[in-house]
Amino acid sequence: MATGTLRLLTCALFSLLVLKSDICLCQQFTVTLLQPSDCGADKIFDISSLSCVKCGPNQISSNSGTTCVCQTGFRVISSNGATITCQQCPADTKPGVTTDGYGCIKCPGGLTEDGKCLCPEGSILVERDLSGNLLEEAECKACSPVESAFSSPDATGSRCVRCQESFINTSQSCVCGPGKINAGGLCFPSTGLPTSVATSVNFAQLAFAVPSVWFSKNLHSSAAACLIFSNLTACQALGNMCAMNMHSFSSITNDACGLYNTIFRATAALGSVQDISYWRANLPWLYYGDQPGLASRALRTEVLPLGFSFKGANKNININFVAAVYNARGDFLKWEDVGGGNLQLCPDTDTRIRAAYVFGTAYQQNCVLSVSKLLKEFPEPLFYDLFMDFSVRDGERKLLAVPLRNLNLQYNGQFVNQGSNINNWYLTRRIFMADTLSGRENRLAAQPKVIRVATDIKISFMLVPNTQRGEVYPPLITVSYSDILVSDAEKQTVPVSFALEYEMDQREAQIKTDIALGVLGGVAVLYSLLKTASWKRRIASPIIDLETILKFLLFYAGDLANVFFVLTVGTGLYWLIFNKAQQFVSVLLPLPSQEERFVTYVACAFALKAVQFLHKLLHQLSVDIFFIDWERPRGKVVEGVGTEKSTPSPVSIWRTYFVANEWNEIQTVRKINPTFQVASVLFFLEVVGFSSLALRDPFPNLKRDPQAYTPPWSLILRYGVASTLWLVIGFLQMLFFTVVHERFVEDRIRQFVDLCSISNISVLLMSHRCFGYYIHGRSVHGHADTNMEEMNVHLKREAENLCGQRGLLPNTDTQTFQVSITHRLRQQYDRILEPLTRRNGPSRLMDASASPFEQNTKAYHTMNRFLGSVIDHAHKEMDYIVKDKLLFERVIGMEFIEPLDKSIFYNDESHSFSDVLYYGNEATLLIFDTLFFCVVDLGSQSFVLAAILTYVEQLVFRFLRNSIGRRNLAAKTLVDERFLI
Amino acid sequence: MATGTLRLLTCALFSLLVLKSDICLCQQFTVTLLQPSDCGADKIFDISSLSCVKCGPNQISSNSGTTCVCQTGFRVISSNGATITCQQCPADTKPGVTTDGYGCIKCPGGLTEDGKCLCPEGSILVERDLSGNLLEEAECKACSPVESAFSSPDATGSRCVRCQESFINTSQSCVCGPGKINAGGLCFPSTGLPTSVATSVNFAQLAFAVPSVWFSKNLHSSAAACLIFSNLTACQALGNMCAMNMHSFSSITNDACGLYNTIFRATAALGSVQDISYWRANLPWLYYGDQPGLASRALRTEVLPLGFSFKGANKNININFVAAVYNARGDFLKWEDVGGGNLQLCPDTDTRIRAAYVFGTAYQQNCVLSVSKLLKEFPEPLFYDLFMDFSVRDGERKLLAVPLRNLNLQYNGQFVNQGSNINNWYLTRRIFMADTLSGRENRLAAQPKVIRVATDIKISFMLVPNTQRGEVYPPLITVSYSDILVSDAEKQTVPVSFALEYEMDQREAQIKTDIALGVLGGVAVLYSLLKTASWKRRIASPIIDLETILKFLLFYAGDLANVFFVLTVGTGLYWLIFNKAQQFVSVLLPLPSQEERFVTYVACAFALKAVQFLHKLLHQLSVDIFFIDWERPRGKVVEGVGTEKSTPSPVSIWRTYFVANEWNEIQTVRKINPTFQVASVLFFLEVVGFSSLALRDPFPNLKRDPQAYTPPWSLILRYGVASTLWLVIGFLQMLFFTVVHERFVEDRIRQFVDLCSISNISVLLMSHRCFGYYIHGRSVHGHADTNMEEMNVHLKREAENLCGQRGLLPNTDTQTFQVSITHRLRQQYDRILEPLTRRNGPSRLMDASASPFEQNTKAYHTMNRFLGSVIDHAHKEMDYIVKDKLLFERVIGMEFIEPLDKSIFYNDESHSFSDVLYYGNEATLLIFDTLFFCVVDLGSQSFVLAAILTYVEQLVFRFLRNSIGRRNLAAKTLVDERFLI
Repeated sequence: MATGTLRLLTCALFSLLVLKSDICLCQQFTVTLLQPSDCGADKIFDISSLSCVKCGPNQISSNSGTTCVCQTGFRVISSNGATITCQQCPADTKPGVTTDGYGCIKCPGGLTEDGKCLCPEGSILVERDLSGNLLEEAECKACSPVESAFSSPDATGSRCVRCQESFINTSQSCVCGPGKINAGGLCFPSTGLPTSVATSVNFAQLAFAVPSVWFSKNLHSSAAACLIFSNLTACQALGNMCAMNMHSFSSITNDACGLYNTIFRATAALGSVQDISYWRANLPWLYYGDQPGLASRALRTEVLPLGFSFKGANKNININFVAAVYNARGDFLKWEDVGGGNLQLCPDTDTRIRAAYVFGTAYQQNCVLSVSKLLKEFPEPLFYDLFMDFSVRDGERKLLAVPLRNLNLQYNGQFVNQGSNINNWYLTRRIFMADTLSGRENRLAAQPKVIRVATDIKISFMLVPNTQRGEVYPPLITVSYSDILVSDAEKQTVPVSFALEYEMDQREAQIKTDIALGVLGGVAVLYSLLKTASWKRRIASPIIDLETILKFLLFYAGDLANVFFVLTVGTGLYWLIFNKAQQFVSVLLPLPSQEERFVTYVACAFALKAVQFLHKLLHQLSVDIFFIDWERPRGKVVEGVGTEKSTPSPVSIWRTYFVANEWNEIQTVRKINPTFQVASVLFFLEVVGFSSLALRDPFPNLKRDPQAYTPPWSLILRYGVASTLWLVIGFLQMLFFTVVHERFVEDRIRQFVDLCSISNISVLLMSHRCFGYYIHGRSVHGHADTNMEEMNVHLKREAENLCGQRGLLPNTDTQTFQVSITHRLRQQYDRILEPLTRRNGPSRLMDASASPFEQNTKAYHTMNRFLGSVIDHAHKEMDYIVKDKLLFERVIGMEFIEPLDKSIFYNDESHSFSDVLYYGNEATLLIFDTLFFCVVDLGSQSFVLAAILTYVEQLVFRFLRNSIGRRNLAAKTLVDERFLI
Repeated sequence: MATGTLRLLTCALFSLLVLKSDICLCQQFTVTLLQPSDCGADKIFDISSLSCVKCGPNQISSNSGTTCVCQTGFRVISSNGATITCQQCPADTKPGVTTDGYGCIKCPGGLTEDGKCLCPEGSILVERDLSGNLLEEAECKACSPVESAFSSPDATGSRCVRCQESFINTSQSCVCGPGKINAGGLCFPSTGLPTSVATSVNFAQLAFAVPSVWFSKNLHSSAAACLIFSNLTACQALGNMCAMNMHSFSSITNDACGLYNTIFRATAALGSVQDISYWRANLPWLYYGDQPGLASRALRTEVLPLGFSFKGANKNININFVAAVYNARGDFLKWEDVGGGNLQLCPDTDTRIRAAYVFGTAYQQNCVLSVSKLLKEFPEPLFYDLFMDFSVRDGERKLLAVPLRNLNLQYNGQFVNQGSNINNWYLTRRIFMADTLSGRENRLAAQPKVIRVATDIKISFMLVPNTQRGEVYPPLITVSYSDILVSDAEKQTVPVSFALEYEMDQREAQIKTDIALGVLGGVAVLYSLLKTASWKRRIASPIIDLETILKFLLFYAGDLANVFFVLTVGTGLYWLIFNKAQQFVSVLLPLPSQEERFVTYVACAFALKAVQFLHKLLHQLSVDIFFIDWERPRGKVVEGVGTEKSTPSPVSIWRTYFVANEWNEIQTVRKINPTFQVASVLFFLEVVGFSSLALRDPFPNLKRDPQAYTPPWSLILRYGVASTLWLVIGFLQMLFFTVVHERFVEDRIRQFVDLCSISNISVLLMSHRCFGYYIHGRSVHGHADTNMEEMNVHLKREAENLCGQRGLLPNTDTQTFQVSITHRLRQQYDRILEPLTRRNGPSRLMDASASPFEQNTKAYHTMNRFLGSVIDHAHKEMDYIVKDKLLFERVIGMEFIEPLDKSIFYNDESHSFSDVLYYGNEATLLIFDTLFFCVVDLGSQSFVLAAILTYVEQLVFRFLRNSIGRRNLAAKTLVDERFLI
């Protein structure tokens, strides 16, 4: 206490002098870390004060370093628990210290290093008589080895006890006589076994062998004891050594597995146990026979007598493994349930560890372990004989032996198990996780030179083909060991992994997919041919040229994209439904390696769809359009007061501006709200949790505990969930827009048609050279270019049905038509537009005086007059007829009649002119967006990124479509681009 | 082998007969699970075949159940390792079996239960002579207990050895004489300690005490051995028992802690060790003094002599704890590094376990453990004396004792440590994780009745105020134990948690926030008053009525929202920057409980901003607007051919439609793309990984390993990251739209002004009763209602600067004005509109004949003429002047001059009429969106959900603004709603 106060004072003074820190940093509660080994020979570690304390005179610290003991040659004369007093024994009379350390005694022979009496081998040291009185002089008594005493010194060397049974059996004495073999503390007669055994352990990965002290101590004696004395523990120990040798065997018979096999053959007469022919009585079961080809018999002929089922009353998803555990010496320790992490070296939470043994959940666990931790956790290996546990009936627990495929097994020097051919495998039993024993070179207590760790363990289940009851073949455990040369255990690490895999035969599914692809692909070819033919007719060109072939390929791309899309969505949905909704297990997901084909299909679908989409976009950006103004001047403009000279009052262009502006705005109107589509898909996937459906497990839960094990993603399921959700929400949106929004809020397409009517303007759209659409907008009131009163009157009259109908033909309502025009009409059309199109070409001398403005307006008026007169049947040679389209024509999208001398106007109630807008191509756009979303997601595994990029993609294409479409509109309708806002 | 074949045949036959399953389900590799205990007395468990095997005659199975031994009274006559043969000993001559089991011997006394010779206590059984020869008759030898033999039988009862030292010390004999106390295998003289000790352990949570066999065996002897023999191990064992009693102490001195304290006081003369006055020599250190108020001295006066630093060369973020580990008996086991999960009962991966000891990372680990696992893992408790390890210099490892706050400690029956007042705490040392020992009632080998588990451990660090070098006070470990009555260990569970917490004094920061809030709040009041005054002037109402106060409150809500927003964003940014960018630790995040105030501020900001936003929205939805058409008829319409009767040709309304349509479309145009804003914020947060910045740790890494430990979120940091990102992206977008998009792509606002000019239409907007905006759109060409040629000529002339300027005043360009109109003008305006507004009122008799249509058009034309004449200075009594606004007027948004007899038109180049559109209120919208996003996120902790809901919010309000705005526009401008598409 006083020291502490002084120290505090000193410290405060010091702080004042140094004036550096404002807080006294001298620690009151600080000690120095000292290990017992830091204290040296004459000090001990005081476990109370955690510091070193000096021993008394003539004392040294004990081996543990925490108590003082007397020096050699000194005895304890008093001890009060904490301290002892030592006194030297008289060197002349009684130089030896008794074993208990409290007395001096005269020795019959010499002294040991620590000052005790020394007796020759086979003798015991006697210091006290039977009643416990200390003798004056110690005696060395020889133990009688012969019958009937059969005695030898015990472990402490202080008593004679009966010697080991094998000595008596072999030599009828406690001395292993000549001609007998003394090994491992046992005595054997000479046997049929090789006299010299291979005690080196071969570490194939490091390409060297370690002379193993464990093998040299135990291999020979275990084999002999197993063979001669039928010692069960010895047999197990031999089996363990064979397992430590990776079950490798060859023609050499003096290594562990060779000895095992020799004994196996030699004890054939004992028969097998448990009705398993590979399991010899007294011996551990190590091999599934010694012939190749037996693996498939063990793995593919039998079926587990239990069905896995994910739901319902018979729910059965737990996989129970039990293991018979043996230690290296061959003792049976216990039956242990596998699941608490026995096979899983990676530490993790209980929940996640246990998740491995749920049937159908793809499980993968990886980590990196430090070698020092392994050395600490596995001072010696444990050996597991694995069984799968299934209770059949009556509560009896039946076990199925689980075969092991040890990838490191060598058969005659070949790694036969590393190939994929099941017929070359040698299945084995008995697995260990880490072997730090066989690699010890000189002493068993020393650190091993090499350790062997089961770094990759995979348990795989295979579904019985066409099962409806969740039957599986016996599981197979594949294990791969790594050999690690221990150099710096603290810094060395080893990556380990543990996995469960569930497989089924996917060949049938693949064949079905191939057939579907073939059939649908063929249909696509036909459909594309039809489209090409229709296109040829519409551009009025009969020759099959390069452009035709290109066009065919473009059409084919779109159709093939649909085929791939249908196929992939179907596959995704199939796996989604069958995997997540099945009760009895009947299908298992394809493995990641089996998904590559599917990803290729998706990529094809996307690439082809992109081609189709761009093609449609380009086509839309180059349609011909013209607004026909039916308005005629209503009055005269009097030029100046007083004069009678007058010109017709100009027809206001503002109605055309209005209509053009409106047309410009509906370019990218869609049947769905694309951003809302993205947002709601993202909402369902990430917030509601539909993304959980894409996990590789059979549970359809949307919400997962973040603490629980999360299986890896299945690409097929991700695609299935995302595309289905996208399509479903898309359809719902279309339904909403068609049924609710367009009826009760606004319908931009119908509004445009109405606007045409109100504004007395017709629209002629030529999507192909000789095919297009016509919106008849002639006002039923004759005039539209008028003031508010008159407009209101018009609207009112129409509302009250007081005027004629709007249709092109009298007394009809049909305002929209598909038009097939004659070649002649088209030529005339082109001729009028010629001065304008020439503008973009090289400058010519002719018409140089006319400014582009004047040419524009001139062409505009000419065109307006020309088209108006054509519609009014004013040109006999360019007349047209109006008719209905046949149903079949409508279905295949092709006109049967060629417009040779008369153009044909087909009634079109369904506003199919929207085909040149986004609006009429919703399917293509939706599928393209879906595929874009899915492809980004498959690449990045992130729905959020996919959603954002899809939004940006929509933004970009909408911007392009709008701005280029606007330029096209301005160029074709001659309306100044500045009014298209 | 034959059996197997037969069995297979039988099985195949069986399958054929039953015809039920197509696959033979008889398992070839199946065994039945048998435990050694299942085999019964006359069978053993064959460890090789894993089945039960019958023992030979006269044999029973041994205790382990795996070997056969002879029955009682039988000796082994031969043994070949696997099998033995037994023979009965002759009952008359040699009835006893020798200890080794191989011989028969005559006994001096009776026989033990297992047929061996029985000797009285204090005697040994001698069966062989010293040389190992079996005697004819066994002898019982009494050990000599007196000097100098001091001997007693050893543990096996077969030899006499020196007896325990305390007997010799106390009684000079191996018999504990009368008046001495024989306890726990030791012999004591009577001491000052209470003779009867309290050996029941009190489990306060279960409200009962268990008579503990461990305490009754060891408490008295440990205390006595500690006091009398200064036995260090005994002292530690006593300390352990005090720790198992939760360090509880009171005036009772015969419980574990009472005995400890008695000895502590009795050994005052021995002094303290390690300069720590609470640490008595020989005793363990358990208490930080026995006075209250000492806790703050240990926790708040000293500073650790090391600074934590997150970056740079002096990076120091590792917290190293070491513990001196003792077992229950008091043996010092080792120094152990804390971190490998010693204090963490929950299993987890190494990485996540280790993450606990990184300074600054808030750590929280929870799980539920099964009691059976605890019983297995903790057969007996280990006791840890915890130290914090910091190497000062010279490689010397200095340790700081870490105090413990045991919440279960009772001082005189009070749980003094559970209060929050540091001055009442009693700090202690020595922690254990699970005590399955003290709750054992009768036998040490039995299952405990009650176990005690450290279910909540929290290590907290406190930063030294105003430190710049990362200095902290000593850490404090708070531990809470749970008492569990073991009834069904397999099913019982216990939730445990482990946490690290880092605190700093937040009072200063709170005071600063309060000051800022006060000052800014005051400014907000002033600014709101100003706004109210300006509003009063603009509606030309001088009276302060209820509406004024309401309006003031609405303005104040907006300003206060801004204050809260600035404050919260500032706070969030402050913590974000200082927490994530600091090198030496100078700040630590507020704890979750300290964040509540902040969340309240955010909620206030959002609520007030919502009020402001809705107020602005409603205001915008009710502005008065009128389109003044300057066009005059250009000609006469001749009614029918031949007659000279003519009327002025009507002025086309389509220009007005066009302008109105355009105005309708720019209602919700913003300076940013709001959906892109949401998408890009989401992109940066979730894809780029900015959300990682909101984790409670000091590392600014964006990408986190999914395998690594994820600290909990900090709400302040989430808000800081989200709001900052939102504002930054918003500003960048505004910059882009102002600098790039509006210059090079399109500027909807300027386009509208241009359109007014081109279409010869002016716009008068009245946002208040006597205040509004005027867009002068009189065409410089006199006419706009014309055909394409003329329009093109107009455009061309303007492009070539061949015509006048567009401004209201001659030779100016200013087209946009803020207008302050006189009361009289407004009255006239209202009078013209009266018939229309009356329409919505109750029907009146007057004008019943006039249809609404006619009233509309009449009002429209009257208004058009009236406003046109006012602009043309035609009404002398309603004249106006044009002037510039003062800078100060512009800044505070208020007009100084009241328009008493002349209206005032203020030049307004900055198009401030957009104030009645979304466009002019970008700041409010952006802040509202930001707050909406952040509030949703704070509530749901999901940026994805926040983004989706923000998008929906924008969608809804845009839809409302558009549709209601359209209706307002139609009502005010008399343009039919059907043209506003």
